[in-house]
Amino acid sequence: MAGNSFGEIFRVTTFGESHGPACGCVVDGCPAGLNLSIEDISRELARRRPSANTQITTARNETDEAEILSGVFEGKTLGTPIAIMVRNKDQKSGDYDKLKEVYRPGHADWTWEAKYGIRDHRGGGRSSGRETLGRVAAGAVAKVFLRTFNIEIKAWTSSAAGLVFPGPGENGFDLSETENNPLRIPCREAAHNALSKLEEIKQNGDSAGCTVSCRVTGIPAGLGEPVFDKLDARLAGAMLSIGSAKGIEFGSGFAAAKSLGSEQNDSPVKSPAQSRNKQNTENDPAFSSNKSGGILGGISNSMPLEFAVAFKPVPSIAKPQQSCNKNGKARELLIQGRHDTCIAGRVVPVVEAMAALVLADFMLLKRGAGS
Amino acid sequence: MAGNSFGEIFRVTTFGESHGPACGCVVDGCPAGLNLSIEDISRELARRRPSANTQITTARNETDEAEILSGVFEGKTLGTPIAIMVRNKDQKSGDYDKLKEVYRPGHADWTWEAKYGIRDHRGGGRSSGRETLGRVAAGAVAKVFLRTFNIEIKAWTSSAAGLVFPGPGENGFDLSETENNPLRIPCREAAHNALSKLEEIKQNGDSAGCTVSCRVTGIPAGLGEPVFDKLDARLAGAMLSIGSAKGIEFGSGFAAAKSLGSEQNDSPVKSPAQSRNKQNTENDPAFSSNKSGGILGGISNSMPLEFAVAFKPVPSIAKPQQSCNKNGKARELLIQGRHDTCIAGRVVPVVEAMAALVLADFMLLKRGAGS
Amino acid sequence: MAGNSFGEIFRVTTFGESHGPACGCVVDGCPAGLNLSIEDISRELARRRPSANTQITTARNETDEAEILSGVFEGKTLGTPIAIMVRNKDQKSGDYDKLKEVYRPGHADWTWEAKYGIRDHRGGGRSSGRETLGRVAAGAVAKVFLRTFNIEIKAWTSSAAGLVFPGPGENGFDLSETENNPLRIPCREAAHNALSKLEEIKQNGDSAGCTVSCRVTGIPAGLGEPVFDKLDARLAGAMLSIGSAKGIEFGSGFAAAKSLGSEQNDSPVKSPAQSRNKQNTENDPAFSSNKSGGILGGISNSMPLEFAVAFKPVPSIAKPQQSCNKNGKARELLIQGRHDTCIAGRVVPVVEAMAALVLADFMLLKRGAGS
Amino acid sequence: MAGNSFGEIFRVTTFGESHGPACGCVVDGCPAGLNLSIEDISRELARRRPSANTQITTARNETDEAEILSGVFEGKTLGTPIAIMVRNKDQKSGDYDKLKEVYRPGHADWTWEAKYGIRDHRGGGRSSGRETLGRVAAGAVAKVFLRTFNIEIKAWTSSAAGLVFPGPGENGFDLSETENNPLRIPCREAAHNALSKLEEIKQNGDSAGCTVSCRVTGIPAGLGEPVFDKLDARLAGAMLSIGSAKGIEFGSGFAAAKSLGSEQNDSPVKSPAQSRNKQNTENDPAFSSNKSGGILGGISNSMPLEFAVAFKPVPSIAKPQQSCNKNGKARELLIQGRHDTCIAGRVVPVVEAMAALVLADFMLLKRGAGS
Repeated sequence: MAGNSFGEIFRVTTFGESHGPACGCVVDGCPAGLNLSIEDISRELARRRPSANTQITTARNETDEAEILSGVFEGKTLGTPIAIMVRNKDQKSGDYDKLKEVYRPGHADWTWEAKYGIRDHRGGGRSSGRETLGRVAAGAVAKVFLRTFNIEIKAWTSSAAGLVFPGPGENGFDLSETENNPLRIPCREAAHNALSKLEEIKQNGDSAGCTVSCRVTGIPAGLGEPVFDKLDARLAGAMLSIGSAKGIEFGSGFAAAKSLGSEQNDSPVKSPAQSRNKQNTENDPAFSSNKSGGILGGISNSMPLEFAVAFKPVPSIAKPQQSCNKNGKARELLIQGRHDTCIAGRVVPVVEAMAALVLADFMLLKRGAGS
Repeated sequence: MAGNSFGEIFRVTTFGESHGPACGCVVDGCPAGLNLSIEDISRELARRRPSANTQITTARNETDEAEILSGVFEGKTLGTPIAIMVRNKDQKSGDYDKLKEVYRPGHADWTWEAKYGIRDHRGGGRSSGRETLGRVAAGAVAKVFLRTFNIEIKAWTSSAAGLVFPGPGENGFDLSETENNPLRIPCREAAHNALSKLEEIKQNGDSAGCTVSCRVTGIPAGLGEPVFDKLDARLAGAMLSIGSAKGIEFGSGFAAAKSLGSEQNDSPVKSPAQSRNKQNTENDPAFSSNKSGGILGGISNSMPLEFAVAFKPVPSIAKPQQSCNKNGKARELLIQGRHDTCIAGRVVPVVEAMAALVLADFMLLKRGAGS
Repeated sequence: MAGNSFGEIFRVTTFGESHGPACGCVVDGCPAGLNLSIEDISRELARRRPSANTQITTARNETDEAEILSGVFEGKTLGTPIAIMVRNKDQKSGDYDKLKEVYRPGHADWTWEAKYGIRDHRGGGRSSGRETLGRVAAGAVAKVFLRTFNIEIKAWTSSAAGLVFPGPGENGFDLSETENNPLRIPCREAAHNALSKLEEIKQNGDSAGCTVSCRVTGIPAGLGEPVFDKLDARLAGAMLSIGSAKGIEFGSGFAAAKSLGSEQNDSPVKSPAQSRNKQNTENDPAFSSNKSGGILGGISNSMPLEFAVAFKPVPSIAKPQQSCNKNGKARELLIQGRHDTCIAGRVVPVVEAMAALVLADFMLLKRGAGS
Repeated sequence: MAGNSFGEIFRVTTFGESHGPACGCVVDGCPAGLNLSIEDISRELARRRPSANTQITTARNETDEAEILSGVFEGKTLGTPIAIMVRNKDQKSGDYDKLKEVYRPGHADWTWEAKYGIRDHRGGGRSSGRETLGRVAAGAVAKVFLRTFNIEIKAWTSSAAGLVFPGPGENGFDLSETENNPLRIPCREAAHNALSKLEEIKQNGDSAGCTVSCRVTGIPAGLGEPVFDKLDARLAGAMLSIGSAKGIEFGSGFAAAKSLGSEQNDSPVKSPAQSRNKQNTENDPAFSSNKSGGILGGISNSMPLEFAVAFKPVPSIAKPQQSCNKNGKARELLIQGRHDTCIAGRVVPVVEAMAALVLADFMLLKRGAGS
């Protein structure tokens, strides 16, 4: 448990401080013989970059040119570790000098100092959002692997700044809209309104929280390793490891805690032909509803996997805040520079990446665990 | 990732099917020289047993006499694996024969069969609530270790059947009441009302969900291993591994996702002498509020750790339900026998046990990770 | 790394002090649906017990009745943890009281005390040879799994007390003799001579070392995970974890270090039909010789796996020895009681068990690691 | 067990094929606050490069300029992952084209192909000796950490091509000579003779094996985690993971297997003041001899750690060899290009690096495992 590796068989290690020389990852255990190109990586990295056409994410100049250092030969994975590196280009750290001595509210400044006795105060070091770059690069590799099973992972912003957006089955929900707006809201109208509200919050020097929902289709029944490495347990661990995540729920989640058994139970039914996964057989049941979010007893039941993650507001706000310094002296703090108002859009690919890492690991293990 | 071990240094393996010969655990990595008696184990096991004075939990005759098989010599831990075993006594499995061919809604029957190709249909085998016995026994050992640091873990039922009970700082909240009622609600009046409501639900042949909240005091700043083994990530994984858990939130949790940064940020302040942990030094800051739930950047900040877990209703209900059998044939199912109406009270010690396992592991690692 | 678990997917945890209530193991990750009976376990446990007809092993009354506590239902493995327990019956610890204060030469008394600050001085606690009981029980389960692939593991005593016994291809070598003599020497005449020599050594109050050789047939090419979890690396770690082991060599081993490349290289040749494994295809090569011991680049090459392990003499001897006590005071020590003169015969099933654990783990992983 | 990570707390992941873009490592879990410079890395990398003044190692132009990509800030470790990269410069792979279809004897060509279905045939890909670059870079970091405890690791070539060189306590043994000759033999005269013999072997188109001995001083008693992660078990696994390693022995090793208990047991004695480690206390015993190689019961006893590793001859020889191709057709093979005649000198820093990784991991864990 050194902290910077994730997964057991499909195992990822990430590295890099926000203002150090480079960020990246090493993906170990990826099966050999997969077609993998630098574009597969770059496409996902581009999704986590700030949009040009919006003010709600930082306009930091992150071109993020990824380089594959190992593990791929003539366009195919070798089964050896795939190292991917992105150089950090925008390393002006002068802005951060005044943050050396004071702890920013809502940030990890003090806890990192308490733990390590030293911290890279420039942009949060490894507690920066830039740390997610390694996750997304690794997730891109996992997605390539999962696609060979027709497993598709789609996340979107389901609420932000107190606004709740249309969800699956609701009026206005349109997943194809997700990539058309910087907040990744699956509804054009809702996105328009949300951008207005966030612009207003930004003008007030404030920031806003959000929830991101995720849906995975095509996974076979049988993923998850009871009793401690259940599918939901691993996903929960994966999602709560993302910066700013404060909660997760599967299927009906916290609403289930208020419901009755007769309302919550999904009934097994004969699986309709058109809904079968590549991996299903004719006699495998489906379910009449999916309140469980695709997981029973910690094991996938072949229904779509569904969960939502709560993210707190970006802690860097433009309002004066109370804090204290290393000696316990009270200090008023005014954080400068450009910061995201809401991480909604940028964290969507990170949620997908972490889901991909969990599922890639289980897809490799599943084949081993069967009889 | 074989699935039945938890933790890295303080490492627990549990075993046992609900109707097999025995349940138990092996605790490896517990420091040597701790005073540990069978009573430390039995006390916690008694808390997860059904209460005699209530009808809302199953009246199964579980005396649960634990035996320590190894790892303790002359009342002290040896640093070697501590194996604890409890024989299963009430093994009438005749009741379950009719469940051999049909999948109970909301249960893990089909997913276990899909995964393993075989299942112990008697009482759910290892997907039974009885599986938590090993967790609680191991958690009891972890608690003994944590108490040497003055770390205290207290969980309680914060809502059930749609009723929300008083929380910390609210009128009527009284933690000392928790152990006085079978639902473990920290308020005598609220417990009375909840029992009435659950009795009514039971009469209707139904069951109810609940949330359990947990508060840990006395933990030092610095626990948690970014970026993947953050304290909240590990706790989330631990809690979602408990049967019926559908969600978790830390601090203000899902409410944080609706809030503004100016509302959510906790301000660092000089730590008042009386609030300091055994491990704090004078200049370590405290925080003016605790909306983060005691964790920043995945690392404990020395404020109390606070989180809540959502549990779905018990899936075994006394109403007829629709299901299907192995051949996809529709079947109406009527589950018989006695079942819990709500797991609220019994799951409280399980939540505490899992928190104890996570924290024991980090307390051993923390000393290693420092400079 | 809590120390008492071995393997990643086929994962074993052992427990138990020599004079505590019980010894045993938990096998996690064993595939479901295997036929497993208590006889499969008992047969292997009987092999590690002292023979009735010999004086060279301790005549301790170990009946070692194993009990399967979980993981097996109606004679088949469930895919859940298989817990196996053996009660310790012969717990007279009075003999050991005088060893409380003095460190026995060649034993782990001082190192355990240095590490844990406490030790169970009765028979060495967990540094006793009895600790191998859990290994052998777990190995018995692994062997059942490996047999479904026609993988066979055979170990024998290849030298003892300075005598070298016939090996494969040499005059007198007869594996079927191995189980007919307490030293497990694969040659009747050599066994007779060795017993005489050991009897003489015993009369002198001394003890003797030995080497155990092991050969595994039927394993497919492709086992081993470079670069750190190579097949030989994992086997070396497994074997050196056995008490008294001081070395290991694969194939020509230390002799290879003295040889020339032209002598050591095995040449790939077309695989003769009769020598093919269940898993080989027609075009897979075999090798003209097997100086590599069946491993190239840390990966099995489908030739028989061959290695030898060196064991030091039993440290408990009947001669007076110099030592010191906790305060550094010199003390003459005379160890009493019955002790093995040579562990040759009893350690053979332990070597097989550890090999089985390594191979079971890789057989489960291999299927996952392929493309 | 993805294969390319080593260690649990001080955890290293290596990456890179011999003819891919780069080789390197990520060191996770290194304590924060250590002084670490690029020179600490470069110095060790230079030791594994071929010497300019000798013909017995390949004259490949490896300048191996290392770059630290993360984890170090203002000359100090941050406690975050330390990524180190070295670009591969000499990537002419034309030489290797004729090796695409035929399996080189003694190499891992066929086993990698059997495992992965694909291989990078240029210079062996990741089964090349260049893979050790990541190990040595990581080991350099571990050495910096270990030096803070005064732990020193010294390896040397103890035999080569059938010649046995002077060892500790023998005439002519002089560790300070080790770095003065390309074979790293601790005796000027013996080195001279060995170089002559190897030159002769080279002229014959052949290669030679060797043994490397290693001695570690300054380690405290108490390192090692019985029963499976014993100190010798972990070291054995580490050493056998090095390419060409065929055996290991601790202390008197295979000679112990031929000896009597009365000859092998080391007697505990009062520790002389001058021999005490930084970590020893006055009453901790020392031992009258060190036949155990510094380990008892898998735990360090504070005496110097001593072991030797056997390496087979370099499999690339200049003589014609018999082999076969993918279709099982016999082929005569003549390997061209320059190859090491003996890896003795170059593998010495690799042995040291692996020992450093094992010990760094245990030094971090030890502090956690105590009472």
